[in-house]
Amino acid sequence: MREFATEISCVGNELLSGITINMNAYWLSKKITEVGGSVKRITVIRDDVDEISLAVRESIARKPDWLIISGGLGPTYDDKTLQGVARGLRLELELDNMALDMLKKSYSRLSMDYELNEIRLKMAKIPVGSTPINNPVGSAPSILIETDETKIVCLPGVPKEMEAIFLESILPEMKKIVGDFHIVEYSYETIGVSEAMLAPTLSEIVDSNPQDSIYLKTHPLGVARISEHISHNSAQKLRIHLISKGNDRVLVQKRFDTISKILFEEISRLKGEIVNPKR
Amino acid sequence: MREFATEISCVGNELLSGITINMNAYWLSKKITEVGGSVKRITVIRDDVDEISLAVRESIARKPDWLIISGGLGPTYDDKTLQGVARGLRLELELDNMALDMLKKSYSRLSMDYELNEIRLKMAKIPVGSTPINNPVGSAPSILIETDETKIVCLPGVPKEMEAIFLESILPEMKKIVGDFHIVEYSYETIGVSEAMLAPTLSEIVDSNPQDSIYLKTHPLGVARISEHISHNSAQKLRIHLISKGNDRVLVQKRFDTISKILFEEISRLKGEIVNPKR
Repeated sequence: MREFATEISCVGNELLSGITINMNAYWLSKKITEVGGSVKRITVIRDDVDEISLAVRESIARKPDWLIISGGLGPTYDDKTLQGVARGLRLELELDNMALDMLKKSYSRLSMDYELNEIRLKMAKIPVGSTPINNPVGSAPSILIETDETKIVCLPGVPKEMEAIFLESILPEMKKIVGDFHIVEYSYETIGVSEAMLAPTLSEIVDSNPQDSIYLKTHPLGVARISEHISHNSAQKLRIHLISKGNDRVLVQKRFDTISKILFEEISRLKGEIVNPKR
Repeated sequence: MREFATEISCVGNELLSGITINMNAYWLSKKITEVGGSVKRITVIRDDVDEISLAVRESIARKPDWLIISGGLGPTYDDKTLQGVARGLRLELELDNMALDMLKKSYSRLSMDYELNEIRLKMAKIPVGSTPINNPVGSAPSILIETDETKIVCLPGVPKEMEAIFLESILPEMKKIVGDFHIVEYSYETIGVSEAMLAPTLSEIVDSNPQDSIYLKTHPLGVARISEHISHNSAQKLRIHLISKGNDRVLVQKRFDTISKILFEEISRLKGEIVNPKR
């Protein structure tokens, strides 16, 4: 399968102190996975130039195809992402005419006739050599920096803005890499088998399929009431999440069906039961 | 203020493909922040021994006081955390008698009279020199490894188990470090001022208070309807999140009140309004 590796970095103290649930990382992972990309790592860091700079360097060293950074592009004192990224890549920040133009247009679209003072101009000071990306919703432009191995994209942290820019300017580029991509996905819920009982079969299935062509995991859902599991060997309830994916629609479906059949047979042999078989 | 630095690592492909929202990292951050700890970084990695090993080494190099790892302790093929941690620290895995004892007790408590086969025994094979921690809810024991600078804790990924072990065995240790700890916290919602308008005042407030004694951030909530903001200079709605924290209850409250007063006066000077003043 054609593929690409992505890392996601989220900048913001609120994500590290139990104030905000990291829905940006969840949303981005979902979108990237849906077009056939593989998210290798998510890193959450504080609003601190040194921390951002270090995280960017560490990430670049792992050579993902993309590094998507979200948060810290606004005008306030704690918006330090561009400073951190510039330091990490040893680039200077410079007022960029294209970014300035985008900023002015945003303000005019938002009917805000603010003076472009130093604090606001900060949003148009971007690392030398980077390309500003239009923000169709808010004011701060995003940027793209192409390094030897990794395309770095800085997006705002406000979800509405982050999502709009990503869908308009980044996801279409990612789609082009993978081309046609298909997913068949289902969560089976079972009763009467434990993770340990199913482990050998799961292991065999994963070993006998190409890496990244399937996703197969069990998650314990707790213990059933006696009335529910009286006829079974185990009281455990499980969720079995199965995903088959790839460029070839027919092969993806065939793989899904074959694995489902193996799971059904093994669960039945172990005297367990699938309570929600896929129809 | 007495303090400690923590990193959190979450292991699981489901957290990197838009299947599961990372509520474990959110919950842990919240608990650690509440007792006065500072979470410096969250890292999410795949169920891959090399990735886990690399992440552990990178984390140790940043020398946090604690590294809390969650996920990947179960019996299935994709539970690789102990292998990864052992490789990262160059330790061997060995069947531990205390861990085995805990595993047997868990099975007996869960009324599961399973044979302790090789797959299940895996949960009692822990890095040499580590201490097993009782799991009061599920089966896999947690472990603690003390390195020169960092205490490493491996917790299960199942939220109910992770939370129970953390509350019973880890949080009390963290509390001891900081001692008495107080937080005053409130989210002001405003209309009629933008982030950029407030930026200089926020910057001044942060600069004139000890680091980590306050948390002060603005989050844009979008644009108000004309009827709502006709009398203001800006259409923007904001959330201003203010936290004051520290060991001294009186000082914490005083700091909160002083900063609130400064914010009120500045917002009023800018012809903005706080729609939910704290009572």
